[in-house]
Parts: sequence; C-alpha cells; structure tokens
Amino acid sequence: MTLLIKNGKLITASESFYADILVEEEQIALVGKDLPVPDNAEVVDASGKLVLPGGVDPHVHLNLPMFGTVSSDDHYTGHKAAAFGGTTTCMDFVPHGPGSLKENIDGWHERADHLAAIDFSFHVNIERWSEQVAAEIVELVNDGVTSIKVFTAYNGSMRLEDGDIFRVMRVAKENGYLTMLHAENGDVIDILVAEAVAAGNLSPEWHAMTRPAWGAVEAVLRASALAGQADAPLYVVHINTAGGVDQLKYARERGLSVMGETCPQYLFFTIDNLRRQDGAKWVCSPPMRTLEDNQRLWQGLKNGTLQTMGTDHCAFFYDGSKPIMYEGKPVAIPGKELGKDDFTKIPNGLPGMADRMPIMWTYGVRTGLMSENQFVALNCTNPAKIFGLYPRKGSLIPGADADIVIWDPDRYLVYGVDVAHHRTDYNLYEGWELRGYPEKVFLRGKMIVDGERWLGKAGMGRYLNRQPFSPVL
Amino acid sequence: MTLLIKNGKLITASESFYADILVEEEQIALVGKDLPVPDNAEVVDASGKLVLPGGVDPHVHLNLPMFGTVSSDDHYTGHKAAAFGGTTTCMDFVPHGPGSLKENIDGWHERADHLAAIDFSFHVNIERWSEQVAAEIVELVNDGVTSIKVFTAYNGSMRLEDGDIFRVMRVAKENGYLTMLHAENGDVIDILVAEAVAAGNLSPEWHAMTRPAWGAVEAVLRASALAGQADAPLYVVHINTAGGVDQLKYARERGLSVMGETCPQYLFFTIDNLRRQDGAKWVCSPPMRTLEDNQRLWQGLKNGTLQTMGTDHCAFFYDGSKPIMYEGKPVAIPGKELGKDDFTKIPNGLPGMADRMPIMWTYGVRTGLMSENQFVALNCTNPAKIFGLYPRKGSLIPGADADIVIWDPDRYLVYGVDVAHHRTDYNLYEGWELRGYPEKVFLRGKMIVDGERWLGKAGMGRYLNRQPFSPVL
Amino acid sequence: MTLLIKNGKLITASESFYADILVEEEQIALVGKDLPVPDNAEVVDASGKLVLPGGVDPHVHLNLPMFGTVSSDDHYTGHKAAAFGGTTTCMDFVPHGPGSLKENIDGWHERADHLAAIDFSFHVNIERWSEQVAAEIVELVNDGVTSIKVFTAYNGSMRLEDGDIFRVMRVAKENGYLTMLHAENGDVIDILVAEAVAAGNLSPEWHAMTRPAWGAVEAVLRASALAGQADAPLYVVHINTAGGVDQLKYARERGLSVMGETCPQYLFFTIDNLRRQDGAKWVCSPPMRTLEDNQRLWQGLKNGTLQTMGTDHCAFFYDGSKPIMYEGKPVAIPGKELGKDDFTKIPNGLPGMADRMPIMWTYGVRTGLMSENQFVALNCTNPAKIFGLYPRKGSLIPGADADIVIWDPDRYLVYGVDVAHHRTDYNLYEGWELRGYPEKVFLRGKMIVDGERWLGKAGMGRYLNRQPFSPVL
Amino acid sequence: MTLLIKNGKLITASESFYADILVEEEQIALVGKDLPVPDNAEVVDASGKLVLPGGVDPHVHLNLPMFGTVSSDDHYTGHKAAAFGGTTTCMDFVPHGPGSLKENIDGWHERADHLAAIDFSFHVNIERWSEQVAAEIVELVNDGVTSIKVFTAYNGSMRLEDGDIFRVMRVAKENGYLTMLHAENGDVIDILVAEAVAAGNLSPEWHAMTRPAWGAVEAVLRASALAGQADAPLYVVHINTAGGVDQLKYARERGLSVMGETCPQYLFFTIDNLRRQDGAKWVCSPPMRTLEDNQRLWQGLKNGTLQTMGTDHCAFFYDGSKPIMYEGKPVAIPGKELGKDDFTKIPNGLPGMADRMPIMWTYGVRTGLMSENQFVALNCTNPAKIFGLYPRKGSLIPGADADIVIWDPDRYLVYGVDVAHHRTDYNLYEGWELRGYPEKVFLRGKMIVDGERWLGKAGMGRYLNRQPFSPVL
Repeated sequence: MTLLIKNGKLITASESFYADILVEEEQIALVGKDLPVPDNAEVVDASGKLVLPGGVDPHVHLNLPMFGTVSSDDHYTGHKAAAFGGTTTCMDFVPHGPGSLKENIDGWHERADHLAAIDFSFHVNIERWSEQVAAEIVELVNDGVTSIKVFTAYNGSMRLEDGDIFRVMRVAKENGYLTMLHAENGDVIDILVAEAVAAGNLSPEWHAMTRPAWGAVEAVLRASALAGQADAPLYVVHINTAGGVDQLKYARERGLSVMGETCPQYLFFTIDNLRRQDGAKWVCSPPMRTLEDNQRLWQGLKNGTLQTMGTDHCAFFYDGSKPIMYEGKPVAIPGKELGKDDFTKIPNGLPGMADRMPIMWTYGVRTGLMSENQFVALNCTNPAKIFGLYPRKGSLIPGADADIVIWDPDRYLVYGVDVAHHRTDYNLYEGWELRGYPEKVFLRGKMIVDGERWLGKAGMGRYLNRQPFSPVL
Repeated sequence: MTLLIKNGKLITASESFYADILVEEEQIALVGKDLPVPDNAEVVDASGKLVLPGGVDPHVHLNLPMFGTVSSDDHYTGHKAAAFGGTTTCMDFVPHGPGSLKENIDGWHERADHLAAIDFSFHVNIERWSEQVAAEIVELVNDGVTSIKVFTAYNGSMRLEDGDIFRVMRVAKENGYLTMLHAENGDVIDILVAEAVAAGNLSPEWHAMTRPAWGAVEAVLRASALAGQADAPLYVVHINTAGGVDQLKYARERGLSVMGETCPQYLFFTIDNLRRQDGAKWVCSPPMRTLEDNQRLWQGLKNGTLQTMGTDHCAFFYDGSKPIMYEGKPVAIPGKELGKDDFTKIPNGLPGMADRMPIMWTYGVRTGLMSENQFVALNCTNPAKIFGLYPRKGSLIPGADADIVIWDPDRYLVYGVDVAHHRTDYNLYEGWELRGYPEKVFLRGKMIVDGERWLGKAGMGRYLNRQPFSPVL
Repeated sequence: MTLLIKNGKLITASESFYADILVEEEQIALVGKDLPVPDNAEVVDASGKLVLPGGVDPHVHLNLPMFGTVSSDDHYTGHKAAAFGGTTTCMDFVPHGPGSLKENIDGWHERADHLAAIDFSFHVNIERWSEQVAAEIVELVNDGVTSIKVFTAYNGSMRLEDGDIFRVMRVAKENGYLTMLHAENGDVIDILVAEAVAAGNLSPEWHAMTRPAWGAVEAVLRASALAGQADAPLYVVHINTAGGVDQLKYARERGLSVMGETCPQYLFFTIDNLRRQDGAKWVCSPPMRTLEDNQRLWQGLKNGTLQTMGTDHCAFFYDGSKPIMYEGKPVAIPGKELGKDDFTKIPNGLPGMADRMPIMWTYGVRTGLMSENQFVALNCTNPAKIFGLYPRKGSLIPGADADIVIWDPDRYLVYGVDVAHHRTDYNLYEGWELRGYPEKVFLRGKMIVDGERWLGKAGMGRYLNRQPFSPVL
Repeated sequence: MTLLIKNGKLITASESFYADILVEEEQIALVGKDLPVPDNAEVVDASGKLVLPGGVDPHVHLNLPMFGTVSSDDHYTGHKAAAFGGTTTCMDFVPHGPGSLKENIDGWHERADHLAAIDFSFHVNIERWSEQVAAEIVELVNDGVTSIKVFTAYNGSMRLEDGDIFRVMRVAKENGYLTMLHAENGDVIDILVAEAVAAGNLSPEWHAMTRPAWGAVEAVLRASALAGQADAPLYVVHINTAGGVDQLKYARERGLSVMGETCPQYLFFTIDNLRRQDGAKWVCSPPMRTLEDNQRLWQGLKNGTLQTMGTDHCAFFYDGSKPIMYEGKPVAIPGKELGKDDFTKIPNGLPGMADRMPIMWTYGVRTGLMSENQFVALNCTNPAKIFGLYPRKGSLIPGADADIVIWDPDRYLVYGVDVAHHRTDYNLYEGWELRGYPEKVFLRGKMIVDGERWLGKAGMGRYLNRQPFSPVL
C-alpha cells in the first residue's frame, strides 16, 4: 500500500517545513518537495494542515484492577481514544504480580494483544526485591521491556525501600534499562490518611491534604540522589509540584542523568477542583496542587527541565451505576462512586489519553507557552527516544513507522466527554474550547481515524520490543 | 564573690564595644563604662583583650561506648579541654538504651555529674518509636531536656524510618522541643559498605567512599520536608556538603523552620586526608568531602544558612596501644588502631571541643570569612538560643551566667595535641599557627583557666535544665 | 543629669533581656540588673515595656527644593515627627549646588542647625565630576561626611555617567567613604516620560509606568558591578523591586561589598495605589511596584540581603492650597496639587520619618516577618554601623549616646495624619491599626517625647561627624 | 544538476537517522530510504559518514579596517576557510560609516560580492542615532538586512548610550528585526586602559585586565532589561563570562526575549593565554576569562541558555612582517605585531571561521558536553532560524538549499594553521588532535570542498536576503 501526503506543513521536534511524505510498506519512504503521485497511491491532500508524528504516550494504565474494580478503558477503548487524540503509541505498566516478571508480562499480553488498536509496549513495575527478581530483570529485554518502575509510596504494596530502589537502579543501569519512579513519601501519607479517616475527614480534597507536596518534592531529590549514587539514569513520572521541578533542575545542573515527565492535569488544575461537589473526578495520585505549581511546571516544560508529557491515563467512571453507550452498547463499570463517602475508596485515576495532544495544542502552543516543535518533542519524539522506540516512533523521518497525524490547526470545537472517546462518563476538560485538532490519523500508513470516523480495529496494534541503552535527554 | 573585668573590648553576637563587667553571685550584674572597683572584688584587667561569652558547644559525645571501646574523653577530660578552648557549656547525647528515656538520662547523669567541669546539658536520642516512647518524650522537659535527635542512617541501630521521624517531630513540636537530625542515607551506606568489605576495599578512604555525598544532600531535604509536613522545627547536625547547604537554604527560603550546624573539620579537611597514611585520624561520620564542599559551608556560615558551629567531638586514640600522660598518669584507651586493617572497625569520631573556637578565630575571623560578631553568634549565642539556654548562656548581658572568656587577640602559638588538652594522642590541627587564644576562662564567675593553668575541677560543672519553645533562627 | 530606666526589656540587634539602664552625661553608663537608684536620678519605670535604641533613619530629605516648591518638613518639623516615631538620628542629603561641596555643606548647616531637634548628619550628592570635585570629596571627612550619593537617573541634573560613578567610587573607597546609589535607568525614563506627556498620559500611575522596574533591576547590578570593578563598597538606596533584591543577592554571593536599603512604602503599596483618585499621594521615585515585589523585599529583609530600613522621607502636602494647623498656626506649602493635571509636575516624595518604626513593628515584627532583634538591627544598629555612627548611635551599650525609646508593645492606636506629626496633610497609613508604639523617647538622656507631649526643641539636635572606613554588613 | 547522497547518517537539530538525500536545482528535493539513482545524477556514497547541514556562522568580520590595517581574511579567503570547516553561510557586519546605512551596505557589497565563495548576508551596525538613522533602519529589510548591532562599549566610536539603544530596539522590534548587542562597559574600560597605559602596563594580558568581567556581566543584564522595556527581542553576541550566562538565564526565566551566542575561544582559553610570550594571538574583545567562565559557558550551551555558536572571526597576522604563502603567492598584512609594545595597538580579533565546527565536534560532541543534535542546532539550525534564513539554510529538509557537509567521524588529524586555510600565520588550536572532520562540502548542491581540494571560487557565494520577524529561541 502506498500513501502520499501532499502539501502539508511538517512539524518535527526542531523544524517546521512544507513537504510531501510518501509512505510505503508501513513506513515513511520519502520526504520531499512536490513528490510525484505513484501509481495506485492513496493521496491525502494536507493543504493548510500540519503533519505531525503520531503521539507517543509514555504513561498509561489500561484495564488495571484497583479498589475492587478495574479502570474503565481497556487496551481497545483506551487505544481508540488515544488515536482520536493523535496518539499512536502508548506504554502501560505491568503490575508485579505473584509470578515471575516474565509471567506477569505474558499475562499482560493476554489482556492487551487481541485488543490493541495502536502500537504499544510495556513498562514493568518492580514491587519487591530479591536475587530472583534481579535475575528476572536482566531477562526483560528479551520481552522487549527496557524500562522498570519503582515507587517510594504505597507502603505495603508497591513501595520499595531506598536500598532496594538503589539495587534496582544498578541492575537497570547495567542492562541499559531506564528506571522510572513514582515520587511521594509513603510513610507520611499513610499516617495522614489514617488520621484523616479517624477524624472523619473523608471528602475528596483530603486525598490531596494527606499527600503533602513536600513529600513529593523531597522524593524527587531522593530518587535523583539514589540514581546519582547508582550512576544510573532516572525518569521521574508525573511530576506535579514546583519543588519537583526545582529539584530535578538542581540534580540535572549538577550532572545527574535524571529526566522528568508531567501530565496535562498538573498544568491546569489545583486542589480547588477536588473541593468541588464532583471533586472525585480529579482524584489521582499524585494530586493536583496550586496555581504556583502549575506555573513552574509550564516553565519546566519550556526550559527543558521536563522532557515528556505523559497522561497517567487511568480512567474510571464518575458514576459507575449509570451506563453510558459505548459503540452502541450500554456499559457501566464501578468507579468513583465507590468512594463517595470516603476518599480512600475513590479509585485513583483520570482519563487523559485522548486529551493530551489537543489540550496541549490549544492551551500550550496557541498560548505561546511552547512552540509547535516543543509540542512534538514533548509528546512524540522525546518519549520515543527515551524509551527505546526511536527512530521507529515519534518522528517523520524516512524509515520511521508511518504513524502520522494530519492536524487541522483551524478546527474549532468544544471539547468534553462526547468528543473524547474514552470509555468513561466524564472528561476533565468539559466545555473547553479547542482550536486545532487531529483530522486524520495513520498507524503504520493505515488511516485509523478520519475526522469523526473510526477506522481502526482491535488487534491491529502491535507490541513493540524496545531497545536498551537509550539516550538521556 | 565579686569579680570586675575592666577595660576589655566586649564582643557580642551583634556588637563590639569597650566596657567593664561586674560579676556578682555567678552572674553578670553590670556592664558599664569605668565601673568603680567594689570592695573585695577580684579585678581582672582586660586591656588590649577581648571579652567574649563562654562558648556553647551544642554537639559533643563524651564517654561514649562504640565498637567495643569507648570514646577517650569523659565528662571531666572533655570539659577541661573545652574550657581551655573557651567553651564553658556543652551538650552531649544520651543514647536510647534498653530502658526508658528517663532511665537512660539517669544513667547518663551517673556518668557525667561527678565529673563535669563546665556546665552541661543532654540531648536524647530517639532510636525507636512506640506509643510508650512517645509518652516518655513528653516527660523529657521534666529532666531539663528539650531536644531530641533522630537518624536517617545507621540501619538496624539508631535509624528511624521516615514515618517514625515524622511522628517524633510532631510530638517534639507539640511539646516545644527541637528535633535534631543526622542526615545520611543508611540504606545505601549499608550496601556500599558490604560491597567494599567484600571487595577488600578496607582502607580509611573507603569510609568516605561508602557514604556518598548525595545521600547526605537528599537527607537534608527529606528531613526538612518531613519537618515541613509535621509543621515542626528542625536542626540538622554536622552538615558537611555543599548540597546540604543548598538544600537547607532552599527549605528556609520556602518558609520551613529548619536550621543547620556544621563543624570545623568540614571546613578544613577533605577526603584526601583520609587517603593519608594516618587517615584513620579523620574518620568520622559524616565524612569530609571536597574543597568545593568546604567553600560552600563557609558561605553558609556567612550568609546565615547555618546558625551554629558544633564539634561532634568524639575523641579516640589514634594508637590506643601506646599510653599518653594525662594529668601525670599514663593512660591508653583502645581507639583507631582497632580498624587499622578494616575501616569498618575504626571508631568514628574526632577530637574537637578544645579546637573549635581557637581554630575558627584564626582561620575564620582573622581571614575575613566571618566577623567577630558572627563568631560569637555561631559559637556562643545561637546555640544557647536554639537549645533553650538563653539568656542564661551564650551572652554578656546582665543576668546571664558569668561564663566569660578573656581572649588575647595577639597571642601566637603553634597548635596541636600538646596544647589542646584532649585526652587523646593526636590533634587534627597539628602544627597550625594560631593568632588569638583564650587567656582566662570564667565559669559562673570562677576562673577555671588562667593561661596554661587549670583551676577547674571535676563536679563543679552544673547540669542545665533547658527551656522548651525556643526560637527558630 | 542622671536617668535610670528600670525593669524594661532591652532589645538589641541580637538579644532581648531584662535590665536597667543608667544614663549619665548624655550617655549610657551602666546596663545591669536591679541597679540602685542614684541620688538625684530621674527614674523611669519601664515595667512591661521594651527599651530600644533610638532609631537611625539613614535616608531623609528635609526642606528640599523641588519643582518650584519645597518639601514640607524642615529640619525641625521632620525631626520632631521622627522623634514621635522613635527615631533620634537622621541623615539627609546635601544637593550638589553650584559652589564647592564644602560650601554646599555649609549652606545646609545654615538650614539645619538652628532647627535640628534630633541628632543628624549629612550625606553629600555628587552630581558632577571633575578633578576639582575629586579634591573636594577627599576633604569631606573634615566636615564629618563619609558617605556620598550618586545617581544613574535624573539625566541632565543629578545623573552621572557610569565612568564618573566609577571614578567617584574609587575616590570614596580610598578615603573610607561609602558610595550610595539611586538605581534607575535615566535614559529610558526620559524617553518614556516624554512620550507619555506627548500622548496625554498624565495621571499619576504614569509616573510608575514611565519608570519600568527592569531599569531599576539592571541598575542595581550595574552599580554593583561598578563597585566590584572599583573594589569599593556600595549601598543601594530604596531598593523597590524583586529583581533588585535578586541582583543584590547575586552580587553579594559573588563577594562584592554591596548593601541595600528599602523603605516601608515599598513593602506595603503597589502601582494600584497610584491608580487611586488620590494617587498623587504615593508618587515618589522609584515608584511602588507589585505584590510580588513587596514579598521579595520582605524576604530580602529577613534573609540579610537588605541591611537597613530608610524612609526617603520627602513630604509634600497633598493639597497645598489648604492650610493645616501646625503647632497652633496655619501652614500651607504648595505640594502634590502642582501636578494634578500632569504627573511630571507632582513633587516626588512621601512623608515617612514618623511612620517607619511604628509601621514596621506592627506589620513586620508582630506579623512574624522579622524578629524584634532584626527590627532593631534594620532600623537602628545597622544604619549606625554602616554610616560611621557606631557605637555612638543605634545601640544600648555603655558609652553610647543615651538615645532610648521606651516602647509600649501593648499600645493600640489607629494611625494616620493626626498621629504622625509630619507637617503635611496626609499619611500613607491612614486608618491602619497599630499595636505597639513609642511611649517615651530620650535624646542623649533628655526626654523629648512623653506620650503625646513634645518636650524637644529646635536647635537641640546635634550635628554628627561620622567616621570613615565603616564595616560592610 | 542532480546529486544523490546515499547511505549517510543524517544529523539534524533533533534527530539522527539513515537516509539518502536527492538534490535538484540547488535544493534538497527528497529525503528518503534507498532512493533510486536518477539518470545523470552525481552519486556520493556517504556510508560510514555523517551528513550535516552546512554550518551557519552568525558572526564574522571580513576585510575589516582596524588600527590602521585590515583584518587579513577577506570575503574570499574567509569564506574558503569557512567552507573547509563545514560552514557554508556566514554573516558579517557592515560598519556604520559616514553615509547612509544603504550606502554602507552598498559599499560592503562592493567589497564582498565578487569575492564571496559561500553564501552570506550582512548585519548592520548602528553606531549613532538620529531620526534619519531611524528612517534608514526601517528600509534595511529592502536590502535583505533584518538584524542590527549596537554596542555598550567603544566609547567615542561605536558605543550608543542606553537611551539610543532603547530607541534602536524599538524601531527594530517594530520592523521585525533582531537587535544584536556587544555587552561590555565602555566607560570603565576607557578609564582602565588609560591608566594601564599611563602606568606602563602594556603587555597583552592588560587587554583583559582593563576589561573586567563584571562590566560584561552587568551589560548583559542591562541590555536584557532595555530589551524588556522596549518589548523587543535581543541577541547578545559573544558571551564570554559565567555571569553573562547567569544573567541571560535570569532574564529568560523572567520572560524576556533574549538569546545569546558564545564562540569557541571562550570555551577553551583563559587570561593565561594572554600571559604567554605570544599572548597577542589571543587578543580579542571581549577577552578570555577563567576556567570557571569556560565551564559555565559549556553549561549554558547544554541547558539552552545560549542558542548559537559564532566565531567573531576577525583574523590578523601574528607577525605581518613575514609573508606566508596563500594560493601560491606570498602575502603579508600588518597585524598583531603593530601592538608588540602596547596592547592598545594590537588589532582585536582572532581567526575562527574554519575552526568552529571541527573543534566543537571533537571537544564538544566527542567529549559528551553536547549531543550531535545540539551541535547541529548551535552551529547550523539555530543561527539560520534566529536570523531569518530558515528553512533555506541550516537544515536538511526538502526545499532547503543543498548546503551539505559529509562529515567523516573517524578522520583523525592534527589541527593547526596549515590545515585551517585562514589567511593568517597562526591558529589558536595549533597541534590539537581532532577526530571527525568535513570530508566533502556542498554549496547549493555544488561540491566546493573535496577532502583537501578546493573546488569553490570567488563570486559563487550568493548574498542572502533575510526575513524579518524571526522566532525567539
């Protein structure tokens, strides 16, 4: 199959220019001026449109069991929503279940592979340490996994002690893997949660009140210091505080190989959202903070302290007792209502895969907070580079997979749950006006989104084996 | 007894001026110009001399069991050495032994009271947490103790987990106590020490190599963050890294009530000292670092990020197999030689009580790195204020205890073990030239040092009950 | 005359303690506990009161010709107002008139000496450079002047070019004088003012709009750099921007001998005040900025970047067409109304000498933004030290002039023009509630303020010869 | 003419990938995988080689009269040298001579056009201000000039007062031009130079001693502040100090549109080079500083504070009395020897056009101080973008001019004057070992360098009309 995209303005991580793209056999074959139309080629006229690499979302959770329910987007519905938002690759996390890491990965393949609608890969959580686990980590590359995640919070479940984090980092380093880290102080959180519950402070805002920002700030430095001592690279997920940006910058300026991700929700919302009647919609971990935190996170994106935009997508219904229609059928999955009287029972997580690129375009690029090239770097190219998918993903270069978004910079719409395609009953950006939106989305040369039409299907997404020894940006 | 000190130049934490001091009943009664000589008064002519408040050393260890031996200065010899160096008050630490805190304090009184030659007080270590311990902490003020110390290092012995540190801080805060903290990362240290030993890396420099600076840096921020979350004041002991200064400053600028101490050894020495043939002499925890660390610590003293100079005095013999003469008798106490083939067996600690003020005068004040008023603030007034001894100690104001040093700014001497009066066989500053030295030292109006003569005696030092709710500087 | 102040709590730049003060022959003779009452002594019971050194205002303008009128407080009325506010020493500026510096000083003595009601000294402006002026500068110490002021703004009148500032700094340095500097960018101001006038933008807010903050920020660094290159100390007057604090800190951290002053008006007001109907009341140079600037200035005071509080007192009537009663007589002096249709004709300046200490006490000390000791340091001791008046002024030490304020920390009043004693018709702090106020004020042992009674008189204030080679704080 | 470059690894400002490039009619037509060889195409096999965009040197001086002589590289010899070093576009500066700006440009065309061997453009100096000059500035775009340069140094010749700089910036802003600025303090320099001369301090190191770093530091902030006040973008040329980097970063973090350039000489050399016997070789303005400055400049390049590498190439003979052979003929031009007894007579300037890319590759990319993509951004893409040449220059995208360098990453050579092709008798990097060097250089598709062969010729370089309203990076 041959595809020719003509007359568009290509946006890469560093350049913007008019050129045509010829796609052959799932890959970009040519980038050039005024390319002739090959026989049998499908031609897409991108006049007046932008041509972007498909987005790479480095941080999602699909079909994730939590609090007695499960996150409401699976590997099909989440992928589909992502595609509508311009994302063609995503990476979700394999929990560290009872078996070996290999068994856990295999189990996750069973959940994902037949449903996948965009290309995908897995990170693996390391939630306990032993020599056996160490040996299993070494083998991860054989399953295409070159990034592992640890936690300084969630005592009694996912948390590792500093010493074990240090050990994990050293094994990771040796094998060319990247350690990812969730940075909060689990000890303090547990104490404060218990006290809040005992005191009857059960409304959603207490979710944030019991996870103080200073715990996230010190954990960023602690993790960076552990990485420095292990001589290993580090990627701190979902940085949500001004101080986290400060500390990441501090560590980077002193030569540590540390990188950081933030997510749209931390740029736009604050603890005040949790104080709303429907505050449960904004319950995720770590929580939203203050306007000052929002601002410093924007600065961190602009000045290069943060390298990627993830979503930490982990959708739940706001009211799982009321079915919504999804692909023509009613569906209802228990969600936020489980915690309507107790914030500790509210499933932690938000929809976001579909929102990331459209929201960042209108409220980041159009507002001048970042350039269109930075947008591509943060949402596409950098995640691909950092996680061993480059140059296959995240780029418009010849030889790359033809994951391409035709972006209509003039498209106006009012965003919200009806537009977003997530399998949930709400959207954080309900009613927000957008200017600029994906018009067509191609996965390896196949059009999977055409305006409001969905052309993709379950199982067409491919699992991506990732490379070790990726660069530190 | 009445004492009149005439014609001296008084140095306080903020002022320098000529005045006479009249001492009555152990206290300063009058400060004035040209005071008349009362009947029966002892008169000291301080013409050409400086008059300083007696030093307050907030951080010493006396008669401390460690590694199968004991630190070589007890509450008599250490106090005597301190007095020669201008220090008239010191605080040492009560370990958290098997009994109650009260029992531990009582035990420490048994060691200290009959020997004490200068005034003294105790800090209490909290090395484990329980509701019982919490209840005991509340009672500490009844024993005159208003400061408690916790550790993020020394796993398996003194270390508390973050959550317990947080709990301690909150109890402390409620009762007006100050939490002190030793900031290193115990987890990483234990791993690196085990590996160094396994690899046969046993020389003294490995003491520093196995305690990486980044662990101390993050621990300063972690501790500050815990204090911030507990809404409690914090005092980080013996800050020894540039990054520790940076992080303390960061925390202070963001409104946290955190303070810091450094010690002379961290201003003058580096890991290179540990690489010497006799490197064991410099083995203490945390270890010396680099010239850059030295410099930033000086800056921290100058710009107010650090509030006090302590010593962390914990003397050991360099070669405990060879007796030295002390007060006319041979004495030998096993010391650093215990670890001559294995750094993990070198008792951790250094002599310093005698050295602090003379060394800081010549190499701090005379070099222009601090003013004479800052010298008094750091060595006398601030420790007294911070630890609930003000205005009784650390000051030349009427009503204060007449702890007074007549300082000869012109006195030249070559410093070293023979001058320092510590009960050990070496001194870190051997051969250093000094200009400026205590000439006479008064404890509550009684002369205890007169040039090279020792006039004090065991038991004359008084235990000081300290006040809670001291200010944060 | 002998005065005994008993039972008060003395507040110095570093200490707070209960003691009595004996005053003899205009000076503090004794500070002590329970001083006996000498024969013939006047006794003041300060029980429940604080005892402070008299304030030292380093920056005032009295009887200053401007814009065809004259500032409304002269050396009597201004001094009297200052005294009511707890200030017993002030320094105003001798303009660089047509004659020699000596002649200018002599002329200023003619204005001041017979009126002075508190002790005072002069700074001298250097508004032009020549070898002749250089020679005159050298002689200034003979007239007791050891500080000179230069300007980077007011082109065509007071401004010196960078090269001449550099030359002045070097002469100053050589003679032990301190160079003071008004930091704004005169070039840009002149252009913007001309444009605003041409465009008919004539309301008071344009006074601030035509003096952009960035001009003040860079001028602080420029001046610091010139001082660094001249190896001379520098004192930047009335720092009014966050960036000014940043740059002063930057320069200090890199070893430059630079100091800074701010004034109360820059801590409390913003450009919004200029936008009021009566905005002219707030017209001074440099102008008020934003809340963020206010905050950083507070931080600068707290962390030691700024060393003094001045007032830049230069009072004008808001409406000089309407007489007020002053000491029983009607008085009216043309003032702000001169510029009611054109901000460029509004005399630049504000009342403030009386307000400084009462306002800073209630809104600085009581709010916890500074300690009572910092209050004394900033308002009394530091200005005295920096400008060569220490230890004669700014201190409660024996031998100091007995300039003493009995401060009632419990006194409640509603502040404003009726309380402030300035000879003008308005006060910036109209209606502000105060808690804490001077009760009695002594100048060299003589009570000049007793509650609401004025006991001072014109001519009793003494001119102070100041010392060169003062310390850099 | 058709050119096909096959099998190379393309390096862009953000990506590295294998692809072929097809060039047609002077431009890049296609970038693709395994491109077929067109008929009549010249084919270059770049296997094992890198393919870079031709370098863009934003800052050179050719044939510049100075100190009674002229810089020794003209628009032919300089261009040729640049080409050998991988640079295919350069911009030099038109002095502000007696006539109109247009006349000055025309005059410069007369010097340059017939000699140009690579593509080029002009910046225009603004050395005096008047309404007439303002009007001429507006017209510059008609001559393809969209950047103008001002100076805060060189009093009496090139210097503008702050107010005039502000005026220039505003005119520039309005017309979409970029203001470039040379940041030093002319006033202080003139004073110090005069004093040095008077004192007989005439050796080359006094060139640096009389231009103190603090003057450059404050000038960076002053210029940034002026730009901020003018709401105009700014580009500070040849930043040479740590403080300059600090201040540029400060300004950028506060939202000012300021950018910065440094040059290789400021990364590798210090004032110690001026102290050598042949120190005159290193005399340029601003001068080299210290190792600490070198380091911070590297950091500034890495973290994005600085956007471009220029050279400030302005070659002179070290000994113009001794001819060298250039293209087979002896040539000698008076140079540094003019100042052999007096640093003020040493022509200011260095060779550098040829050195920039080879030196930065070996000592920047290979040492890990920057990535290969940052190298391209700094040396090629960013200068093109900033100065209105993008996407025509600095890029490998279709439609760009086919200025292409085939870079041999394995080529080893010992660099120096014999290699560099500058028309001068010395090179700063004499004897430096290089690994990586241009192998072939194409200008608009024509090979002008082939290993050691020069295929270009005078007059083939084209003058580039540049676009206004370029982005701020």
